[in-house]
Amino acid sequence: MTTALLTDRYELTMIEAALHSGRADRRSVFEVFARRLPDGRRFGVLAGTGRLLEAIADFRFAEAELEWLERERVVGRRTLDWLAAYRFRGDITGYREGEVYLPNSPLLTVEGGFAEAVVLETLVLSVLNYDTAVASAAARMVAAAEGRPLAEMGSRRTSEASAVAAARAAYIAGFDATSNLEAGRTWGIPTMGTAAHSFTLLHDTEEQAFRAQVETLGTGTTLLIDTYDIRQAVETAVRVAGTGLGAVRIDSGDLPSLVREVRAQLDSLGATGTRITVTSDLNEHTIAALRGAPVDSYGVGTSVVTGSGAPAAGMVYKLVAHSDDDGSWVPVAKKSAEKASHGGAKRAVRELRGGVAVAERIVVDADRDGVPEALEIDGRELTVPLMRDGQAVPEFLGVTGTRNARAHRAAAIAELPIGALRLSHGEAEIPTVFG
Amino acid sequence: MTTALLTDRYELTMIEAALHSGRADRRSVFEVFARRLPDGRRFGVLAGTGRLLEAIADFRFAEAELEWLERERVVGRRTLDWLAAYRFRGDITGYREGEVYLPNSPLLTVEGGFAEAVVLETLVLSVLNYDTAVASAAARMVAAAEGRPLAEMGSRRTSEASAVAAARAAYIAGFDATSNLEAGRTWGIPTMGTAAHSFTLLHDTEEQAFRAQVETLGTGTTLLIDTYDIRQAVETAVRVAGTGLGAVRIDSGDLPSLVREVRAQLDSLGATGTRITVTSDLNEHTIAALRGAPVDSYGVGTSVVTGSGAPAAGMVYKLVAHSDDDGSWVPVAKKSAEKASHGGAKRAVRELRGGVAVAERIVVDADRDGVPEALEIDGRELTVPLMRDGQAVPEFLGVTGTRNARAHRAAAIAELPIGALRLSHGEAEIPTVFG
Repeated sequence: MTTALLTDRYELTMIEAALHSGRADRRSVFEVFARRLPDGRRFGVLAGTGRLLEAIADFRFAEAELEWLERERVVGRRTLDWLAAYRFRGDITGYREGEVYLPNSPLLTVEGGFAEAVVLETLVLSVLNYDTAVASAAARMVAAAEGRPLAEMGSRRTSEASAVAAARAAYIAGFDATSNLEAGRTWGIPTMGTAAHSFTLLHDTEEQAFRAQVETLGTGTTLLIDTYDIRQAVETAVRVAGTGLGAVRIDSGDLPSLVREVRAQLDSLGATGTRITVTSDLNEHTIAALRGAPVDSYGVGTSVVTGSGAPAAGMVYKLVAHSDDDGSWVPVAKKSAEKASHGGAKRAVRELRGGVAVAERIVVDADRDGVPEALEIDGRELTVPLMRDGQAVPEFLGVTGTRNARAHRAAAIAELPIGALRLSHGEAEIPTVFG
Repeated sequence: MTTALLTDRYELTMIEAALHSGRADRRSVFEVFARRLPDGRRFGVLAGTGRLLEAIADFRFAEAELEWLERERVVGRRTLDWLAAYRFRGDITGYREGEVYLPNSPLLTVEGGFAEAVVLETLVLSVLNYDTAVASAAARMVAAAEGRPLAEMGSRRTSEASAVAAARAAYIAGFDATSNLEAGRTWGIPTMGTAAHSFTLLHDTEEQAFRAQVETLGTGTTLLIDTYDIRQAVETAVRVAGTGLGAVRIDSGDLPSLVREVRAQLDSLGATGTRITVTSDLNEHTIAALRGAPVDSYGVGTSVVTGSGAPAAGMVYKLVAHSDDDGSWVPVAKKSAEKASHGGAKRAVRELRGGVAVAERIVVDADRDGVPEALEIDGRELTVPLMRDGQAVPEFLGVTGTRNARAHRAAAIAELPIGALRLSHGEAEIPTVFG
């Protein structure tokens, strides 16, 4: 399935006009960045890069797409021929997937002919804005959980294809599992889940339902105990499964007090090893509020897949430089109003002091000469090659890329000052410095 | 492409356990409803139904899916065989797509064997929760625009597949066009768009860029005038395109005052027919704030595709009745805590007085005898057949279904009391009454 029509119409009309003006092949550099973090956040976590590199490889205009574009008169013959021959052959550099980012971090740089690079704008932003919104929210939940495992189970709260992307982004941000089977198949993420309230309601008694589940899925299963009376359900659960019952799940009610009561009851019945998992409209704040309660794991739905109040990361895709007729690089930037930006191709270094991040240093490579200046700072290079002449760097792709991103996220978060993990509203935790 | 793995793992483990307990084939009724509207909203607009009916037809477990489920030991052989033979053969009734809804409206009723119906839960909710969130937000923007045309252009602010669904949902809610090409191809929605700031920045001067665009796309095109200085850009635009220029677009700045200045300048240059379109982070409130300004059309991005603060509609999929061993219907409902629900299969009527909606009347059809009671009220039947024995009703599918939904939405909104269209925070505009 091609990704080529997951594109705003104006990308194609711009190509048409640029072919006419003779500017379509001007070597161009587009940059992806976010002017600010979501309101009150102290850092973001980049996700989607691996998925994007694969989607760019599938960005081809086949017969069916060209016929539709012609029939609808979106563009003319010359542009249709150009699109028929299209595949991205340029270079992409950027932050590693899983990387921490800050306002104006140059997250992705796409270099190619103008038309070749501009046509990817919609796809690039769709993937990165959504996945990064999820990962950035998920990272705060991971911090709030203080080491207790988290499962993503929000597939039903975002569109069916977004659900797979959300599971992947949450996993990269430190979640441990997902309920979504396609995310398990495509991205190798561990899947989890046992039963819903409907399963209990289907049976004539709660005991019948528990017995059916335990006989089928084993005593290590998780029994859902809040369909009727929780106290009665715990008693039934341990009677049916024995004290080796894996876990119980609570999906409603006043969790801090309920969890304590259920823990005490389980212990009194001898089920001291039975874990308690909670799944009731959790977000980073309610997770943090359960820090003092004997919860063993969390399942998070709506809030993680919708970015917990920030459902899009606010990244933009801006032309920052192009070559002129002499082949020299010209930095460009929109001037007007509140959306002014910084011209020129950039690279970035996270400045560290004693292993702790102190600044996001962004250097404009005005000459585009590919020779990084030696920076006289203690820091970690953030800009790495992701795609070269249209070929993606394999370590960022597929199941391996997803795992690598998860590991990279852990390392990048570990560099942050401890205050960055606070959940309260605040400013970006470290400053972005140009030059 | 199958939709079968866009599913929470617990749907399949429930089937496994229900096959074991002999309850998998119990005739069951699942209901989709939302306990409440998004905070402060007065009504919602249902969307996604047509798309869902098509996705249910594609819900099949092929060899690749079965092999993965087996390898991962998600379920055992008996369940794998059951899944291999699966296709939905049951009945679905519900609200028409585009229908106005209220808290507890029975939006969709899925009837079939327990396993047959429960397995659709994740897919049903993913589609309806996202599409309805978008349509419900979009309907408020349409009301705010007071008849001026709206274009959806938020593809880059939601994941790439969601973008297509969002364009469709916004169109159903009354938007007139989308920037998304795939939404044009798949759902027959008019597409629009001309150029971005990058196109102007690519050229050596703004005039070169405008000239290239006008020569390629015609004088009826829309020129983007806020890359550098707006006043200068308007002057250049009219000089290049003539007074027949189609439109100018403003994407930043203080819109109410800018729009007035640009209108006055266009008029003074003789371009009295040139329209003004604005596209700068609009939502229902900023659209309403422009009611007094000479804006001709709006382009809306982030806020519409993210549900303008309510990115998921909060619908649930609950077992409300099943047959017992004698074949009698048993209404069921979860009892615990704040998530209690109403048992029994339902139908709904919108009670009207003088053509104006006054109540959402919900009747429990406890016997499931298929004979609707004659209701002694003036009203419109809301519950209609959508799928019979696994076959969807054609009028709800494809391009035709999308257009029908848009027309139905217009009629349903027209029945609402005028106060329902207020943008201020409020309660559901008409009460939901059981019985």
